[in-house]
Formats: sequence, structure tokens, C-alpha cells
Amino acid sequence: MPHSNTHHEVLIVVFQVRHFPATAQSPRSGPELAVLLWQRALDPEAGSWSLPGGRLHDDEDLTTSARRQLAEKVDVREVAHLEQLSVFSEPHRVPGARTIASTYLGLVPITSDPQLPDDTSWHPVSHLPEMSFDHGIMVENARARLAAKLSYTNIAYGLAPSEFAMSTLREIYCAALGYQVDATNLQRVLSRRNVLVPTGTTAPPGRTGGRPPALYRFTDSRLRVTDEFAALRPPA
Amino acid sequence: MPHSNTHHEVLIVVFQVRHFPATAQSPRSGPELAVLLWQRALDPEAGSWSLPGGRLHDDEDLTTSARRQLAEKVDVREVAHLEQLSVFSEPHRVPGARTIASTYLGLVPITSDPQLPDDTSWHPVSHLPEMSFDHGIMVENARARLAAKLSYTNIAYGLAPSEFAMSTLREIYCAALGYQVDATNLQRVLSRRNVLVPTGTTAPPGRTGGRPPALYRFTDSRLRVTDEFAALRPPA
Repeated sequence: MPHSNTHHEVLIVVFQVRHFPATAQSPRSGPELAVLLWQRALDPEAGSWSLPGGRLHDDEDLTTSARRQLAEKVDVREVAHLEQLSVFSEPHRVPGARTIASTYLGLVPITSDPQLPDDTSWHPVSHLPEMSFDHGIMVENARARLAAKLSYTNIAYGLAPSEFAMSTLREIYCAALGYQVDATNLQRVLSRRNVLVPTGTTAPPGRTGGRPPALYRFTDSRLRVTDEFAALRPPA
Repeated sequence: MPHSNTHHEVLIVVFQVRHFPATAQSPRSGPELAVLLWQRALDPEAGSWSLPGGRLHDDEDLTTSARRQLAEKVDVREVAHLEQLSVFSEPHRVPGARTIASTYLGLVPITSDPQLPDDTSWHPVSHLPEMSFDHGIMVENARARLAAKLSYTNIAYGLAPSEFAMSTLREIYCAALGYQVDATNLQRVLSRRNVLVPTGTTAPPGRTGGRPPALYRFTDSRLRVTDEFAALRPPA
């Protein structure tokens, strides 16, 4: 079996929870999970929307490449979490020379507002534009991974501000999961698992008056599995 | 930045829980987590031990390649679970042309005893022989992933017989995790999460007499996250 030249690219699915103006197509007014896309000016598939990324260089590993390529689109200091996801290796996934794509998940906190190049913008995951090649599948794959990890890790630290009221965290979970969750339940479960701690302070009084809400922060800012259930916990 | 030719290989970390004879080096007599390795007859690194795998062919995707390459070492019908793990992409990870390695996790049930080629054997993960290149790191990476997944998925179906007493499942968990877990706790947690169901039958009476143990099976034989905790569960 001869081996022709194969290229390797890195593509990053960058998510942020963002407020979009309500439209007839998208009547929801709450924040939504959004993905960072750029529009192809040239063929193949000119006009379609692509994930940020590109060819792996000879002198870099995949994670170094992901950070370099993200830096061309957004200030990478605004990416709070970056992790490797699946490899897409179908032999004819793009026209021309075979190109294997390693995908990454990147998370940007709700409070960041990165400057973007002219060809790049945020799109609600629920209403993607015409996507290039297999990039739409990659977004869905990353969304499913994020939703699963929200239930057994502390990954929401990548989407949340450094300090937040539970109402904000609830909005982030609802947007990332695509369905409603209850703030009281969320706080109870995350506190019991030591994912959250109260900061001991409260938010500045809001415009509506009322009691200012207590603020919380994530215990860790590195990914960890939060549900090592009792039977399987290693001896202390 | 010029791009020289880059190769892509697939390497599979195949685990099985196995009984090894006690030795001075390894005095434990219970079953242990074992990994399938073959010994390199030729340089580079002749005599060291490698994971099964090899070059990706032009006409196959990674999973197809993993199954093909596994078939050269073991009957792949004995692999109950196969999933993609990390990509190893350090530019100089092997001598010669750059080779990017996609790793897979494969699980073989404790009751299988696959026929192996002469150069291939099972090794306890706790006492690995001299490993080729970065293959030792790949084994540790896969072991850590397996241990984490045991706590939030039903992945143990890949290591267990189709029907089993809780004492057998406990041995499998202890071996895979590397520490003791309690059979009563394990049964309680896995039953509550609907991971296990009783078959309604019991094992044949053992040599020691006594009450024959109840048998269980896994509810699913596809991977699923078993801890979508209440606050985050989608509406029914």
C-alpha cells in the first residue's frame, strides 16, 4: 500500500456564551452558546464559514499549533480552557491532498470581548451559517463533549467570570446545555462536590434594588473530574 | 515554513484484567491490569516493547486502521470497547521522518484468552518492560483515562464478562484502579445509576460451598455517561 503525502491541520472550536439580539429566526433573548467562525474568501467553498486553524508546522506539536493559530484570530490570553478533542480522518474529507484534522475545544469567559479580524465573527450554535467541509459536524461534536463534561467536571470555569452570582452561572449552564436548569439545584450540587466556593462578598446593588446576590468562584481553574464517587475514591 | 513529509500512525493500548503468577518483583496474587505489547526484533530500539499499531493507510480512517492493525495481533472480535485517545505530536518523538501518533484505548473482557503471535504478550501495567519511544507514556495516559472513566461511565462493560458475580466485578475495578474498592459500595452505586441489573440467576455452586452468588450484567454495552446529575438532566 503506497503512502501519498498527507497533511495535518489543527481546527479549534472556540465557544463563548454571548447575548445575541433577538430575531424572527432566533426569538430567544437570553444568552446563547456561540462559536467563533471565519468566512472563506477563496475557493474551495468560498463564502462558507470555517473553524479557525490551519496546517501543523514542522517544529510544533498540536497544542502549540492550536495556540499559534488561535492567536491569529483572538488574543489567546482570553482562552481560559483548551483541550484536544477528536481527530477527523476520513480520507476525502477535504478536496486535494489528504488532510487529517485534529480538533480542539477552546472556552472564552462570558465577560471577555475579544477583538476579531474582519472575516471573523461569533455565531449562535443553534443557527449555524453554511459551514465548510465537515466543520459543522466538528462543532456539534464539541458541543456534545462540552455538555457531557459540564455534568462530571468543573469545565464551566472556562465559560464563567472569575466571580459570579448563581444567576449568571445558571445562564451559562442553560446556554451551554440548551435547556433550563434550576439555580438552586445547580448551587447545591456544585457546592457539595466542592466545585464552587462562596467568595464571602456580594455583587454591587443592581438597578432593580433588592438584596445583592452572593458571589461565588470556582475552586479550581484546571479541569478535574468532580464525581469520583465514594466507592471508587482512592484511600486518603 | 516548509512542510516536509509527515507520517501518521495508529497505536492501540489494549487492556485486560489478568491473573499473573506471583513473583518476587510482583508479589500480588490478585488479578492485575495488563497491556498487550510486542517486542521489536529490529532497530530502532530493538528489544524494547511497543504498542500494537502502525501506519495509517491512504484509504482508511483512524478507527478502521486501528481495527485492521489490532487484527494482526489479536482476534478483534475479542475487543469489547475501542475509543480514540490523545494524539502524540512532538516533532521528534521517533527517529526519522516525523510521525504523528493517534492512540486508541481497547478493552478485552477478563474471560477472553486471545491467541497471540510469538512476539506479543501481556504485561502487568504496574511492571512494564523497557518500552519503545513514548509508548510508556501512552500506556500511563490510557490507564489514567480508564480510571477516570470508571467513575463516571459504564466503561467497565469492556473488561467484565457478560454475566458476573459482584466479587468478580470488584476484582476488575480494583485491578483497573490500582487500589481496593468495596463490593457492597460498588454494587449500591452502580445499581442506583442503572449501570448494572441483576440477571435473576446465580452462579453455579463454588468449590467452597456456601450460598451461590447472584449474577449481574451491564445494562448497556455502549459507552454512556452515568452521572448526569439531577440539576443538569434534560427535561423528560
